[in-house]
Amino acid sequence: MVSPIETRLPTGVKDFLPIKASKLEYLQSSLRQIYHRWGFRLVAPSLLEDLAVLELGLGEDLREKTFRFDDRQSGRLVAFPPDITPQVARIAATRMQGMPLPFRLCYSGRVLRHTEQRLGKDREIYQSGVELIGLENPEVDAEMIAMAIEGLQAVGAQDFTIDIGQVEFLRGILANLDITAQQTRELQVAIASKDLSQLQKLVASLPVEDRQREELLALPRLFGGKSTLTRAEKVVTNDTSRLALENLHVVLDTLDSYGVEEHITIDLGEIRGFDYHTGLIFQGFLSGFGHAVCSGGRYDGLTARYGFPAPATGFSFSLLNLLFALEKNLETQVDYGSDLLLCSTGSDLAAVHHLASTLRNQGFSVAHDITSRNRQDRLTYARRMHFRNLLIADPNADELVLIRVSDGRETSLSMAAGRAGELHL
Amino acid sequence: MVSPIETRLPTGVKDFLPIKASKLEYLQSSLRQIYHRWGFRLVAPSLLEDLAVLELGLGEDLREKTFRFDDRQSGRLVAFPPDITPQVARIAATRMQGMPLPFRLCYSGRVLRHTEQRLGKDREIYQSGVELIGLENPEVDAEMIAMAIEGLQAVGAQDFTIDIGQVEFLRGILANLDITAQQTRELQVAIASKDLSQLQKLVASLPVEDRQREELLALPRLFGGKSTLTRAEKVVTNDTSRLALENLHVVLDTLDSYGVEEHITIDLGEIRGFDYHTGLIFQGFLSGFGHAVCSGGRYDGLTARYGFPAPATGFSFSLLNLLFALEKNLETQVDYGSDLLLCSTGSDLAAVHHLASTLRNQGFSVAHDITSRNRQDRLTYARRMHFRNLLIADPNADELVLIRVSDGRETSLSMAAGRAGELHL
Repeated sequence: MVSPIETRLPTGVKDFLPIKASKLEYLQSSLRQIYHRWGFRLVAPSLLEDLAVLELGLGEDLREKTFRFDDRQSGRLVAFPPDITPQVARIAATRMQGMPLPFRLCYSGRVLRHTEQRLGKDREIYQSGVELIGLENPEVDAEMIAMAIEGLQAVGAQDFTIDIGQVEFLRGILANLDITAQQTRELQVAIASKDLSQLQKLVASLPVEDRQREELLALPRLFGGKSTLTRAEKVVTNDTSRLALENLHVVLDTLDSYGVEEHITIDLGEIRGFDYHTGLIFQGFLSGFGHAVCSGGRYDGLTARYGFPAPATGFSFSLLNLLFALEKNLETQVDYGSDLLLCSTGSDLAAVHHLASTLRNQGFSVAHDITSRNRQDRLTYARRMHFRNLLIADPNADELVLIRVSDGRETSLSMAAGRAGELHL
Repeated sequence: MVSPIETRLPTGVKDFLPIKASKLEYLQSSLRQIYHRWGFRLVAPSLLEDLAVLELGLGEDLREKTFRFDDRQSGRLVAFPPDITPQVARIAATRMQGMPLPFRLCYSGRVLRHTEQRLGKDREIYQSGVELIGLENPEVDAEMIAMAIEGLQAVGAQDFTIDIGQVEFLRGILANLDITAQQTRELQVAIASKDLSQLQKLVASLPVEDRQREELLALPRLFGGKSTLTRAEKVVTNDTSRLALENLHVVLDTLDSYGVEEHITIDLGEIRGFDYHTGLIFQGFLSGFGHAVCSGGRYDGLTARYGFPAPATGFSFSLLNLLFALEKNLETQVDYGSDLLLCSTGSDLAAVHHLASTLRNQGFSVAHDITSRNRQDRLTYARRMHFRNLLIADPNADELVLIRVSDGRETSLSMAAGRAGELHL
C-alpha cells in the first residue's frame, strides 16, 4: 500500500529499536544514578524556547545550528534548543533566585542541531550531563572530571582517557600579541592541529618579541602527562598563563586524591570552546573510538547573560557516541524484557495471571503469549523475538515446564514451586 | 542586566525544577519498569518526522495541532509529533518487517501540540505508554487495562477508576440510520454529554424506526457496573452492537481473572477517539482529579496506513496529569539526592573522597560542600537546599559528626565506622 520511500525520516534523525533503545536507556539511567549519588538534582527544561531568550546563551556556532520557526499561536520566533546547558543556566538564573549557592543540577534530554548532512552527522543528539553553579574553586572542576570518570566506569568503559586543557593558558599567550583577529585565528588553528611548521611560518611573519615567540612555538609540544605542566612553567612568562597552570596543578592534585590520575592526560594547545569556556576544559575518549564521549569545562560567563553572574562548570555525555563506542560491551549488561514467554494450556486464566504476577514481582519480565499456537510455533516465536525462556503453565496438571530457548533444555516444577521463587533461569 | 520579562518561555511549555522533575522521573521509571516486567520492549522514535509521513498516522484533530516547519536543510516540511502512537505504528510497520507478531513495545517521551491558549493548556505533553501489535483477542485489551491498573498502583494511586467503552457499540446503532453526517455528530454530542432531553429532541426529528429510537434513547443511561452489559443486551438489536457487547463480556471476565474488577466502570455512550479507535476504549481517573491520567484502546486500522495491516491496542499515561493528581502522595516516595551534605575539616582530601565514595556505594546521595563556610552557614545551606543531614568529617581526629537538619540531633562515630556502613540516617 505504501512504498518504503514514503516512510523515510528526515535526514540526521533516527528511531531506535528495542535492543539499542534499551542500551540508550541503560546508559541514561546509569549516569543519572551517578549524578544523583553525587548530590546533583534533576531539572527538566522545556522542549521549546523563545528564540531571543535562548540565543542569549548560545555562541555563534550553536546559533547557526538552531532549529527555529514561527510559533503560529504567538507569532513569535521559537526554537528547539541545540544544547541544554544554556537552558539550565537560564533556569538557575531566573527560577532559583534566592536559593543559596552552589546549585548542583543534572539533566538528560534530546537536542536538535543543523549539521553538515554530507558528513552524515546526527541532527538529533542525546545529552546527559551536570552543571555546578556558584563555585569557582579548582576542586570543583576536579569533581566534574572525577564524576565523568565514575560515569564511564559505571557504564562499563575500561580503557579511556580524560584529556584536560585550560583556555586561559592560551589566552594569556595570545592576549599580549599585537596582531589581528584573523592572525589570532590562524595561530589557533595551527596550534590546535599541532602543525609546528605552519606555526613557525606564522610566528616568523608576526611582530612578536623573542619570549612570546618561544611561548607560541612551545604550544604544539605541551601535551602529555603531568610533567607537561613543569615544561609549560619553564616557557611561559605572562601572568594569565601562569595562573592557568596553577589552577591545573590544584585540579591535578585533587584528581590524585580521587585516585583517578591514571586516566588523565593534558593538552595545553586544546582550543575547543575557546570563545565560550573560561578555564579548565576536558573531553573523554574511549580507546579505539575517535569521537569524544563526554566533554565539559568551566563557563563563568554564561549565567550572567540571564542576569545572574555566577561561576559555573559542568560536562555532558553524548549518549549516542557512548552507545556506539560501547555497543558490544553493553550486550551483557542490558536486559530488555526477555526473560520469559509464558503460555498456558487449559482454561484457568486466573491461575495463570496469578503466576505471571508472582513471577513479575520476583523481578522476571514475563510476556503472556495470548495465542493458540502450538508448542513448536511458540518456541520459534520465542527464539526470533530473543526470549531466553519459554514457560508452559498447566494449572490443571499443576505443572510448569521451563524450556531454555538457546539449547532446548527442559525443567519441570509445580505451579506452587514457581510461585514460591524456585524458578531458576 | 536582563529584565525578567526577557527570559519568559513560549506559552504552554514549562521547565521543571528539581522536586517536580524528580517526581516526573519517578513516574516515568516506575511505569517503564511495569512495562518491562510485562515483556514490553522500549523503542525510541525520532523527535522529528517528515510531515507527510507523520500525517498518514494522524486523525484530523491531531493534524491541526501539529507543530510544523520548513527544514532548511532539506527544504521539506517536517513536524514534531503530537503523539507517539503513530510513530510506534510506523516503526512496527516499516522497521520490524519479518519479525513474528505480536510486538509488545513501549515508549516514553515528550510531544508538542497546539492548544487553545486561553484555556492555559499544556502544549508540551509527557507521554509514557505501550502498544501491543498483532493480536485481536479481547484478552489483549484486558491485558492493557490490567497493566494500566498495575501502573497506577505502582506509582501509589489508590482510589481510581478505569472507565471502559466500546466504539463499535455506538457505531452499530448509528450505522443503520438514514441521517446526515451533521445529524450523526449532533447525536454523538448529546449522547456523550448524557443530555437526554436534547437527545429526545434530536431523535424525534429524525427518520428512525421504533427499535432504533429505543436504542438511541437508552444510550445516556448505559453506564455503571457490569450490569450495564445486561441492560444494553436487552435494548440493542443490531449485530455490530451485539458483537461489541460480547467483546466486552470477554474483556470483563478476563479482568475478573486478574482480580481488578473493583476498579472497572462501563460507559457505552463514551465516544472519545470515535474516528480513530475500532473497539474497546478506556480512560483512567483518580478520585478528585477531573482529567484522565491514562487512556487507550484498540486501533486496528493504524499500521495499515504505513503499509502493514495488523490489529493493535495500547494505552498511554499523561505524566503531567499523573504528577498533578498524585503530587502530594509522591512527596514521600521520591528521593531527589538530598541524603547528605558532606563537609570536612583539615587537609586530608583523599580520606574525604574515599569516605564519600564509600557512602555513595552504600546508596546514599552525597554532595561535597567544597566551601570554607562555618558550621552554622553550612547548616543553613543544608536546610534551605532540603538536605536531610549534614555530615562533618574530621580525618585527623578520625571523627564523623552527623547532624539531622530537621531537629539538629547529633551523632558521632569514627571514620572507619562510617565507611563500614554504620551511618544510619
